[in-house]
Amino acid sequence: MILEVAILDVRPGKQDEFEIAFAQAQSIISGMCGYVSHELKSCVEVPNRYLLLVNWETLEAHTEGFRGSQQYQQWRELLHHFYEPFPVVEHYRSLALPDN
Amino acid sequence: MILEVAILDVRPGKQDEFEIAFAQAQSIISGMCGYVSHELKSCVEVPNRYLLLVNWETLEAHTEGFRGSQQYQQWRELLHHFYEPFPVVEHYRSLALPDN
Repeated sequence: MILEVAILDVRPGKQDEFEIAFAQAQSIISGMCGYVSHELKSCVEVPNRYLLLVNWETLEAHTEGFRGSQQYQQWRELLHHFYEPFPVVEHYRSLALPDN
Repeated sequence: MILEVAILDVRPGKQDEFEIAFAQAQSIISGMCGYVSHELKSCVEVPNRYLLLVNWETLEAHTEGFRGSQQYQQWRELLHHFYEPFPVVEHYRSLALPDN
């Protein structure tokens, strides 16, 4: 499993519109092949900052499957115009820590 | 519930030592009042980058309880010397998205 992590800075004053658009957009991502779960959270310290966490079965389910899909075009149209600057998206994998 | 989020850049070449130290340090945080759960994950794109996610019952359980505790001094001694630059820690809360 791979966790997609994006810190989303939304144009100031556009938070309510963004939340409405995200509520609509999340059904797009939830229907994709290899999607596992997602959460959108809001930042305590920065009022127009959000954290998007998406679990995918594999890295490619996100980077190739979702980003290469027609549905991604709808996702972009709904959401990308809210971001300033455009977010850096990273992926994280689970770690097997050494035994103590 | 509040999610503490820290992107940890570990000095290059020190990842194995950091993982050993974190395996030891995690018992400190897990025993704190108001601690709920945590995960440490490693970044796919940046080899010496990690993501620490900690769920706390309240913001203050982290910012006052943990950071003001004697145990935090042990945590710092075990971990802080690995970080370059020193991480920015943020907190995120769950969102009630509008109905569609």
